[in-house]
Amino acid sequence: MMSEAAGDLDQYIIAAQEPFEDGLRTLVEIPSVSQHAVCKPDVRRCILSAEEYLQILMKGGTKVDTKSRLIGWDNGLPAVYWKCIRHRKWPTIILYNHLDVQPAEQKDGWDTEPFELVILDAPKVGRQYFGRGTTDDKGPALVGLLAIKFALLRGLPLNFVVVWESEEEDGSMHFPEILAQIKDDLQGLSSPSLLISDTIWPAVHVPSVSCGLRGVINFTFELTTAIDDRNRAKGVHSGLCGGVATNPIIRLSHVIAASVDEAGWVAVRGAHDGLAPLPAEALEAFAQTDAITLETFKRDFGLRSCFAGSVPDLLNRIWNLPTFEVTGIIGGVTEPAGAVKTEIPGYARAHVSCRLGPGQDPVQFEQALRKHVARIDSDMVIIRRGGVSRPFAMDPKGPYLQAAAEAFKTGFGYPEVVFDRCGGSIGAVIHFTELLPGLPVVLLGLSLPTHNYHGTNENFDWRQAAGGIRTFVHYFERVANMPTAQK
Amino acid sequence: MMSEAAGDLDQYIIAAQEPFEDGLRTLVEIPSVSQHAVCKPDVRRCILSAEEYLQILMKGGTKVDTKSRLIGWDNGLPAVYWKCIRHRKWPTIILYNHLDVQPAEQKDGWDTEPFELVILDAPKVGRQYFGRGTTDDKGPALVGLLAIKFALLRGLPLNFVVVWESEEEDGSMHFPEILAQIKDDLQGLSSPSLLISDTIWPAVHVPSVSCGLRGVINFTFELTTAIDDRNRAKGVHSGLCGGVATNPIIRLSHVIAASVDEAGWVAVRGAHDGLAPLPAEALEAFAQTDAITLETFKRDFGLRSCFAGSVPDLLNRIWNLPTFEVTGIIGGVTEPAGAVKTEIPGYARAHVSCRLGPGQDPVQFEQALRKHVARIDSDMVIIRRGGVSRPFAMDPKGPYLQAAAEAFKTGFGYPEVVFDRCGGSIGAVIHFTELLPGLPVVLLGLSLPTHNYHGTNENFDWRQAAGGIRTFVHYFERVANMPTAQK
Repeated sequence: MMSEAAGDLDQYIIAAQEPFEDGLRTLVEIPSVSQHAVCKPDVRRCILSAEEYLQILMKGGTKVDTKSRLIGWDNGLPAVYWKCIRHRKWPTIILYNHLDVQPAEQKDGWDTEPFELVILDAPKVGRQYFGRGTTDDKGPALVGLLAIKFALLRGLPLNFVVVWESEEEDGSMHFPEILAQIKDDLQGLSSPSLLISDTIWPAVHVPSVSCGLRGVINFTFELTTAIDDRNRAKGVHSGLCGGVATNPIIRLSHVIAASVDEAGWVAVRGAHDGLAPLPAEALEAFAQTDAITLETFKRDFGLRSCFAGSVPDLLNRIWNLPTFEVTGIIGGVTEPAGAVKTEIPGYARAHVSCRLGPGQDPVQFEQALRKHVARIDSDMVIIRRGGVSRPFAMDPKGPYLQAAAEAFKTGFGYPEVVFDRCGGSIGAVIHFTELLPGLPVVLLGLSLPTHNYHGTNENFDWRQAAGGIRTFVHYFERVANMPTAQK
Repeated sequence: MMSEAAGDLDQYIIAAQEPFEDGLRTLVEIPSVSQHAVCKPDVRRCILSAEEYLQILMKGGTKVDTKSRLIGWDNGLPAVYWKCIRHRKWPTIILYNHLDVQPAEQKDGWDTEPFELVILDAPKVGRQYFGRGTTDDKGPALVGLLAIKFALLRGLPLNFVVVWESEEEDGSMHFPEILAQIKDDLQGLSSPSLLISDTIWPAVHVPSVSCGLRGVINFTFELTTAIDDRNRAKGVHSGLCGGVATNPIIRLSHVIAASVDEAGWVAVRGAHDGLAPLPAEALEAFAQTDAITLETFKRDFGLRSCFAGSVPDLLNRIWNLPTFEVTGIIGGVTEPAGAVKTEIPGYARAHVSCRLGPGQDPVQFEQALRKHVARIDSDMVIIRRGGVSRPFAMDPKGPYLQAAAEAFKTGFGYPEVVFDRCGGSIGAVIHFTELLPGLPVVLLGLSLPTHNYHGTNENFDWRQAAGGIRTFVHYFERVANMPTAQK
């Protein structure tokens, strides 16, 4: 077990590896898939285990009296809420993470059982951790917690609040209710700032502080073209009806093809409304570095081809522009792979996920999309799925973001740190800032492109975790020492 | 058991119901799905059972010495071959059917177990038979056999050959090899003609003699856009890569949308090459009848909408024009139905089935399709699947087709019989006529639009079976009495 005295940060980090891995194993091995109704008990179990871990970790040697409780237990998916208010005037760091994960099944191509923590000794990164949630976001959550513990042991003049939710991967629909229950607490905090580690670096040696997130809104498109006498979809013979029956897959294809052109641009009228152009300065850091090239981007994500013609084009596309991506499609008979079932299906469905750029309004976007689809195929049924996250952007010149960048420099010792944006979405950011207007937000991600966010063989590593603890501690020290005027 | 004496045809048909149902139960309850490799033993078992049934039925009372044997047992999927050559100068009827079936699973919406024969007493149709293969083509096969038995009991001056194959639903790829093994027999037959009952009527009271079949050729289209370090397809995060990564479902949609326009016309350059226009006379019978309207067609097949603007347009589309139908598509995550997995898939696949009109060449069609797809997306991989059937058309004025129409009139007693075409495909027709040039072909279907060919709740009924036996017997009598010059 790790040393319980404050001591040296390097020593602390060495000792922290064991409790980090213990905690990661406990959390990863609970399949807390918030999108699957059948996993609700697992999500609750994960939240319970996380609270227990947090309590035990914080009791050990910190001599600090803290409280944790579960919120939203009876209403939607629950959250862990922990607070450690030591002085009413000290600045308060709110650490947010999510403990739910994306679905994962071994048959999707995982080399290991996704809900088992598999540890590899890997020369460059110390230890490599495989399993769903290792990088998104269970690993980074533990990094934050271990850094807070060090800050408490060291006696830094800071207050801390931890909010770990369990519905982020399903759109954080109930998160406003969670926050409503702790609204008075949050609004009474001294100099609060929000710290989130749920974003990724552009490349393996280039730490980044993210200054923006895209929004996200999800839909299913459904079409039933032939029905039996009980109104259930049915297929029809492709010889007897082929050429006359409308084919739901082909009709879906027309709608999809009319929504994104062959160069990857969203072709929905009104889909770019409200979009704030990406500021030139957002690309500046990347103009002077070779942190990212089209080739490294493709290699890191395993892409055989990509739409971007240059790095600025690439960054604009993933940081700022709205998207229309089909994340799944199904219809007719597809098994075995060589099947020749000569039947026109009676039903098909596509799952569509759209990202929104800063300045865009999800409600307007949805209206534009519905109008667009209705123009092409008025029979198409569009259902909105899960929660909606609004986009978000901020100015990198703020003191908290600057403090984060400095902390990254000393935390990892790499030559450069960049301010970038993240093409992903974190619903909680918007909900926090709506409750606490002007709340500084710091996105201090630790994940790498090779960590396979949302993909198969998701992984994290000890090099990122150890550097992360060091960075977080340095960041805390900077916030503790920040002139009051800046807070 | 049925009467073993010749007797009256009506009496014979009443007595035939029991052996018909016994045979149908035996055959339907063997899942002879030729497309599924795992069902190969079942397909063989079905062929064995059918041969046994045929032998027992023919031995009973006919005093005719016949032989049956299995062909192709070791090479591909086997066929039953039975011959009854009683006089070297009598005309010979070759009865062809297929005993393999389309795939079926109860979860696809069947009300009954698809491989169990379920019989309902239904006032209008006598008895209704539910189960995969009842109408396509096990029921009609037994109708033909029971009619042959009556002809033998009655002593009609005809020879008979039965060929029942087991690979029709997978494209009859090995059928030429089957025929090669009985080539000498077939080429030595006196006045042979081919009789096939595997087509459907335009409406419930309108028997039809089909004068044409479309061809069919099947493909899968596959695209892999992102791979892991072992070259397996993998998904990527829709936030981190969305807008830059190419999406295989969207790319497939572009190819599909460019292949069929929104009015249902095939838009592949060269896809109509060689097509013989539908002769005006082919539509004549339908101009004078209300056998079929757009409304009845839609109702019978359960279609919510259709492309045709008039009956001639409808018939031209299903009888003559080439098609491009997507029979299945799969990619990404689609379960549960409300899934919001925000990942761009790395792989997608579409199953495409194309019908060809009379005059068209499958080889040229495939070349045109490959060129077309390559122009739109050169990464798309196209694999041809299963066998290829060529289209076929004939002149309804021929004596055999006229005899068939007359037989339908007396067999069912309905006011009209039409010459139509069938939009489906029967590979064996081409293989037979290649071996025996000029062979008269008669497509004497007994199925109805409501029998759900290839669909869920496939069914057949005793009214069609009984009328079918009567029609076949009348047809045999007409062929037996045909002036030699016509043969």
